[in-house]
Amino acid sequence: MLEKKIQKRKAFFISDKTGITAEMLGHSILSQFDEIIFIEKTIPFIDNEEKAFNALDTIYEMTRDDTDKPIIFSTLVDKNISKIIQNKSNAIFLDCFQIFIAPLEKELGVSSSHSIGKVRSVNNTGYFKRIEAVNFALQYDDGQVSRDLSKADIILIGVSRCGKTPTCLFLAMQYGIKAANYPIIPEDFLNDRLPEFIIKIKNKVFGLSIDPQQLSQIREKRRPNSEYASYSNCIFETQSANKLMNKEKITFFDMTNQSIEEISSQILQNINWNRNQF
Amino acid sequence: MLEKKIQKRKAFFISDKTGITAEMLGHSILSQFDEIIFIEKTIPFIDNEEKAFNALDTIYEMTRDDTDKPIIFSTLVDKNISKIIQNKSNAIFLDCFQIFIAPLEKELGVSSSHSIGKVRSVNNTGYFKRIEAVNFALQYDDGQVSRDLSKADIILIGVSRCGKTPTCLFLAMQYGIKAANYPIIPEDFLNDRLPEFIIKIKNKVFGLSIDPQQLSQIREKRRPNSEYASYSNCIFETQSANKLMNKEKITFFDMTNQSIEEISSQILQNINWNRNQF
Repeated sequence: MLEKKIQKRKAFFISDKTGITAEMLGHSILSQFDEIIFIEKTIPFIDNEEKAFNALDTIYEMTRDDTDKPIIFSTLVDKNISKIIQNKSNAIFLDCFQIFIAPLEKELGVSSSHSIGKVRSVNNTGYFKRIEAVNFALQYDDGQVSRDLSKADIILIGVSRCGKTPTCLFLAMQYGIKAANYPIIPEDFLNDRLPEFIIKIKNKVFGLSIDPQQLSQIREKRRPNSEYASYSNCIFETQSANKLMNKEKITFFDMTNQSIEEISSQILQNINWNRNQF
Repeated sequence: MLEKKIQKRKAFFISDKTGITAEMLGHSILSQFDEIIFIEKTIPFIDNEEKAFNALDTIYEMTRDDTDKPIIFSTLVDKNISKIIQNKSNAIFLDCFQIFIAPLEKELGVSSSHSIGKVRSVNNTGYFKRIEAVNFALQYDDGQVSRDLSKADIILIGVSRCGKTPTCLFLAMQYGIKAANYPIIPEDFLNDRLPEFIIKIKNKVFGLSIDPQQLSQIREKRRPNSEYASYSNCIFETQSANKLMNKEKITFFDMTNQSIEEISSQILQNINWNRNQF
């Protein structure tokens, strides 16, 4: 059999702050090259020249035995620090910052703060809103506080283990959206009807569905060989849940082949959500 | 008093997938311009020409009364779709994708998949690891399962409401790290010692500290006028917790002026964490 040699590359995400933006951008761009395995390292908080030289040491040590050049994604703001890394690293240097800042300064007619530490700061009012939303999602997880779901921006419903909680937490953490969830339970199937407190706020309710086989696998990990996890029960629950959601004309999304990011994005599109809209 | 006119701008994040990368990059770049208020909208899933024209309609409708041009951050992969938006939108068009992909294709000697939908896909093994880690963080929240913290990659300790849970969830969701947390409680202060099960795994333990005034404000919201939330109690608890962490030489970080992203980044640096390292 012909064996294909797999190319491996080191990739670095370098930043004067946490490096999360460089990492997100770089990681998603690199994932376009699925023939190559990337060893990825984030080098955060490079906010003075001494640290820049330390970063160069790290890059050098991690790549000295490699044949190929490493790739660096940078969100460094300071031009001098950026130049040090760019000139001395012997890498493909992709500057996520300078490319975008210059045309924006021109268009907006103001200088960027160029101050180090503006990104995702706690001084940003959005930050506390996000933390509050995470706490809300935890408090209103799994129908724990079903009496007052009206405080929620959105409510996710679906059978147990279909992915409601991680999706709620993602909506909270990323966007500061107060997301509660309610599990559709056997009692609801018996009643052949969703609970009244869900129906009366159904304009804010979205459903999640999932393939019964995948659900069964997920549940098996939690409760092996249980009726709860059995394929036949998972078929029954998912079909019944979809029927109840269809009955109330609740929009629902299939988690089977979609990530929580993709589902969240579709929910936001459905509620026509904008950041800072007023 | 001189009143400064605040400039407002519309900004769009457009993508053939969820738009999260475009949004993260764009949002962090725009936050460098703190004199300007940006009304931000994400337009995801633009993966054919018809949807591109629908996106143009959205942009047109949202900006028709504006004097200034909107700003568009794009991670569109398809060149034709990208050209439609770029040529017909009358906006500052910042192409996050083409700028980075071309030099990478050259350097790596392979074509990017250019396939739509490679980013953050569920086919990516990292995805299920992240979801599993979120479930782990929830299961091991607030010392709920203190008997077996050895399964955790890291354990965060600190007084109640200092920010342990959101930080654990962020580490899980963003990096797939299994993060547990244990609240330092009055019993630990009485014993003048952290519990034995924490001490014996202290190489994986990190602490969070917080300014007592900020802690008091956070706790007031949860339990108004309680001893628990009182400033004097918060001084006592934070000082005692710091003393216990110092005693065991546990590295701890101050949450007072730092975001969960910044703290997480420092923790990862401390454990020298790399994605895909092997």
